[in-house]
Amino acid sequence: MTKEVTHKSDIEIAQEASMKRIEEIAAQLNLTEEDWEPYGRYKAKLSLDLFDKLKTASEGKVVLVTSINPTPAGEGKSTVTVGLGQALNRLGEKAIIALREPSLGPSMGLKGGAAGGGYSQVIPMEDINLHFTGDIHAITTANNALAAFIDNHIHRGNELKIDPRRIVWKRVIDMNDRALRNIVIGLGGPIQGVPREDGFDITVASEVMAIFCLARDLKDLKKKLSRMVVAYTYDNQPVTVSDLKVEGALTLLLKDALRPNLVQTLENTPAIIHGGPFANIAHGCNSIIATKLASKLGDFVVTEAGFGADLGAEKFLNIKSRYGELKPSAVVIVATARALKMHGGVDKTQLSVENIAALAKGMANLEKHIETIQAFGLPFVVGLNRFVSDHDEEVQHILNWCRERNIPVEIADVWLKGGEGGEDLARTVLNIIETQSNAFEPLYTLDQPLEEKIITIAEKVYGAAGVQFSQKALAQLREFEQQGWSSLPVCMAKTQYSLSDDPKKLGRPTEFVISIRELKASIGAGFIVALTGDVMTMPGLPKSPAALNMDVTEDGKAVGLF
Amino acid sequence: MTKEVTHKSDIEIAQEASMKRIEEIAAQLNLTEEDWEPYGRYKAKLSLDLFDKLKTASEGKVVLVTSINPTPAGEGKSTVTVGLGQALNRLGEKAIIALREPSLGPSMGLKGGAAGGGYSQVIPMEDINLHFTGDIHAITTANNALAAFIDNHIHRGNELKIDPRRIVWKRVIDMNDRALRNIVIGLGGPIQGVPREDGFDITVASEVMAIFCLARDLKDLKKKLSRMVVAYTYDNQPVTVSDLKVEGALTLLLKDALRPNLVQTLENTPAIIHGGPFANIAHGCNSIIATKLASKLGDFVVTEAGFGADLGAEKFLNIKSRYGELKPSAVVIVATARALKMHGGVDKTQLSVENIAALAKGMANLEKHIETIQAFGLPFVVGLNRFVSDHDEEVQHILNWCRERNIPVEIADVWLKGGEGGEDLARTVLNIIETQSNAFEPLYTLDQPLEEKIITIAEKVYGAAGVQFSQKALAQLREFEQQGWSSLPVCMAKTQYSLSDDPKKLGRPTEFVISIRELKASIGAGFIVALTGDVMTMPGLPKSPAALNMDVTEDGKAVGLF
Repeated sequence: MTKEVTHKSDIEIAQEASMKRIEEIAAQLNLTEEDWEPYGRYKAKLSLDLFDKLKTASEGKVVLVTSINPTPAGEGKSTVTVGLGQALNRLGEKAIIALREPSLGPSMGLKGGAAGGGYSQVIPMEDINLHFTGDIHAITTANNALAAFIDNHIHRGNELKIDPRRIVWKRVIDMNDRALRNIVIGLGGPIQGVPREDGFDITVASEVMAIFCLARDLKDLKKKLSRMVVAYTYDNQPVTVSDLKVEGALTLLLKDALRPNLVQTLENTPAIIHGGPFANIAHGCNSIIATKLASKLGDFVVTEAGFGADLGAEKFLNIKSRYGELKPSAVVIVATARALKMHGGVDKTQLSVENIAALAKGMANLEKHIETIQAFGLPFVVGLNRFVSDHDEEVQHILNWCRERNIPVEIADVWLKGGEGGEDLARTVLNIIETQSNAFEPLYTLDQPLEEKIITIAEKVYGAAGVQFSQKALAQLREFEQQGWSSLPVCMAKTQYSLSDDPKKLGRPTEFVISIRELKASIGAGFIVALTGDVMTMPGLPKSPAALNMDVTEDGKAVGLF
Repeated sequence: MTKEVTHKSDIEIAQEASMKRIEEIAAQLNLTEEDWEPYGRYKAKLSLDLFDKLKTASEGKVVLVTSINPTPAGEGKSTVTVGLGQALNRLGEKAIIALREPSLGPSMGLKGGAAGGGYSQVIPMEDINLHFTGDIHAITTANNALAAFIDNHIHRGNELKIDPRRIVWKRVIDMNDRALRNIVIGLGGPIQGVPREDGFDITVASEVMAIFCLARDLKDLKKKLSRMVVAYTYDNQPVTVSDLKVEGALTLLLKDALRPNLVQTLENTPAIIHGGPFANIAHGCNSIIATKLASKLGDFVVTEAGFGADLGAEKFLNIKSRYGELKPSAVVIVATARALKMHGGVDKTQLSVENIAALAKGMANLEKHIETIQAFGLPFVVGLNRFVSDHDEEVQHILNWCRERNIPVEIADVWLKGGEGGEDLARTVLNIIETQSNAFEPLYTLDQPLEEKIITIAEKVYGAAGVQFSQKALAQLREFEQQGWSSLPVCMAKTQYSLSDDPKKLGRPTEFVISIRELKASIGAGFIVALTGDVMTMPGLPKSPAALNMDVTEDGKAVGLF
């Protein structure tokens, strides 16, 4: 974010906002008191009974916000999502924003808001970025209760004959804590459990989080939880949660969290923030419940998917849309001049220097993501997220590039101007929905073999020349077929920085091969994860964590939180 | 609990309660809207600004509920606390209940409510026993953020020269998970951290929880957090949180949790539930903030301390009262016929058989706790918590035993009858406050050496013949003296089942010696823990955890939770 040219930080802008009480936001949505419960004066949880109540209501149009491959320069996808929602409301449309809940762990490490920025933020941002309504804590608890049940089962006689070397269920924590990546547990003798290798992931990488975001209701949540494969027996047979008989307890731990959270933007546009899985080993989108409910309550839902279109949007369109029976009406592809310059080879220390040549080269990254969205048959517009420090020439270059190709493009000046800065983008979104054809189809059908699904994504979305499967992955493909898991969609775990599986290859790499190292069966969530290269499921802290600058005033105001 | 003779379980009674909305409870306390924030319709967090607002308000009288040494027969201390609060209100007094927040982990393991029982419960009990308002999750997060900061500091160059073998800060989880008691972390090579031995405690055993409950306000919380000793250097010098410069971040993570939680009882008596440290390695009482605020808002505060009078009450009176500048007005010592019979040697399978001889023998346990409360100079009454299955002869024996000795005693029939069943007890509490002298003094002064403080508690509270210090403990005593920590109170970590440090010695053991194995410096909390025997800081799950019977209905109602 270009904080160097503005006088106020995100947190200062957020703390000065004139928030409406949450009952006013609820009233805007025609909700009655039994439809929601307050969590403080500015947050609410919405009742799942609303789905019954709104059974006959028509569904609003879903607008998906995605982006080019992220770079350290920042893309501001959440900021554009919030700004676009605000803009639609300014134009008289009834729009609701649906976003992911930020993970607390990373905010202790690197500075960087997860609630939009500038004058396009969801608020109260302090709460949203700290414990919010406790959903992620509930997911941590359910995940770790299951881990304790597994180890206790083994310790207490191991009736299910679980092989302690084949436990695939990891513990989680909502923290960047590299020391927990690889650990040995159960030490200390016979009354302290059974020693084995283990490790912690960050909570948002948990399959429980993935399920939470794909479940349609409590019953569906329980069904999905019960199917999770947590280990294999000495005979290599899968052991599920239902074998352990704890799906009821896990569902109970998640029952309140499953109700989606209502907040507002700086311009009092309603926002539903719920669930937040990783966009590598999971699908990277807020909950289906949030998106569906927003579409029942509004005429438009503006929602985002994690990372670039190669990861988050691909999964939104191939996985989430399928399980949620969602059909997006349009896609916004966010790009920035700064990020495109990085894709063109500029170092992050040189971003403020005008460099049209590098920008022109970097456009190839945007071009590939445009092709991807076209492959899904969806109307789209490029949203150029304007930074205050952007050079006019560079901005003009991007606009020209698009216009020469008949590609809809609009400047989104939402960081500085809020909804007003997004009105052009909003008008174009409305226009393409109205005028362009929508032939949305996922890129593969479920009856295709897993191998084919992976190759389809690699070739059509990443632009790869092919896919190489490791011996281990090939063996797993056969094994998963025997288990009857072939008809699931695939969830690609790939670096977010590159279209390839090499994070250093920016821009639009060609002639590369995607290497599939290993597969992971997320049977509860309902997908097979294909791991390419090293995928980080537990981040570490930097040398000087952001936490060093955090504080709270004596009257309880947050300091140093973005 | 005697569920065999009633038709309804605690959760059924709780779910049928006619709850008042939390704004009505707040109005009963003359609170205005800025004084509290709702968390759902039946829970609220109270503003810490209330202390300023009520600066000139007089302080209500504090009634402390304690008990004999707990047995598997159950004492029902929380039930009596709730029942007494309800009864005082029925008599026209303005009474508020202050209780600890239950830890979620143990409820997944063993059945047993932590919110009272029968018709003397705090509600909504499902919420209170699950995630409640997230306070314990916030404490877990702060504790583990600190752990991550420590390991990250070492990994990133270890400027403070922390000896990885001398880290005394453990990670925590709100779960019964024995496999995490002894672990090795940081495995996997140079980019995964520095390998070392570690272990998890249950969250309620964290020093952060102890501090949370002793802090007077946000500023005091931060000061106490900054003083925590987390490790020692290679030169054996203490390393504190302020050396790591993360006290601001930790305080930020706890800022919302520090506001106490308002709920109600089944009879709509206000209850403040806040904080819940272990009563062995910590002080076992709800937060000072909760007790103080309740005393500002009501004429009477009924509060409890964990385990028996040898642990919880001793710490309430020697530690919490000192830091909170609290002076209890009266003490209720809870006993049951069943538990006293166990102290007299009856096996728990034989408790329903009348056995006056065993009961007579078991009275010695009650007698010792009475002497302890007398040693503190406090008026008291024995509260005989009636079980529906109690034999009349046994009840009469206890009443006679007390009356022969001029000891105030009343039957508390609060499980079956709610507040009505506690009116006699309430009248006697009011009477002893009115008529008996109160010469309350802690049992030791802060300028006594640590050794003397420990001996005082062992002899005066436990009835020990003496104290034996291990070589390690003796060396630590000298070391702590050099560090300037001698003027802190001591927090005894002893089994709750016996007055001695041997859990098998029930009743009133004599001629025993207390062995001090090791000391632990809780400098942030402001006490030195003296560990006797094995003290459990991470429980395990039983063979058939209660979780196996838990579930949630499709419309979100909890099943099998007590």
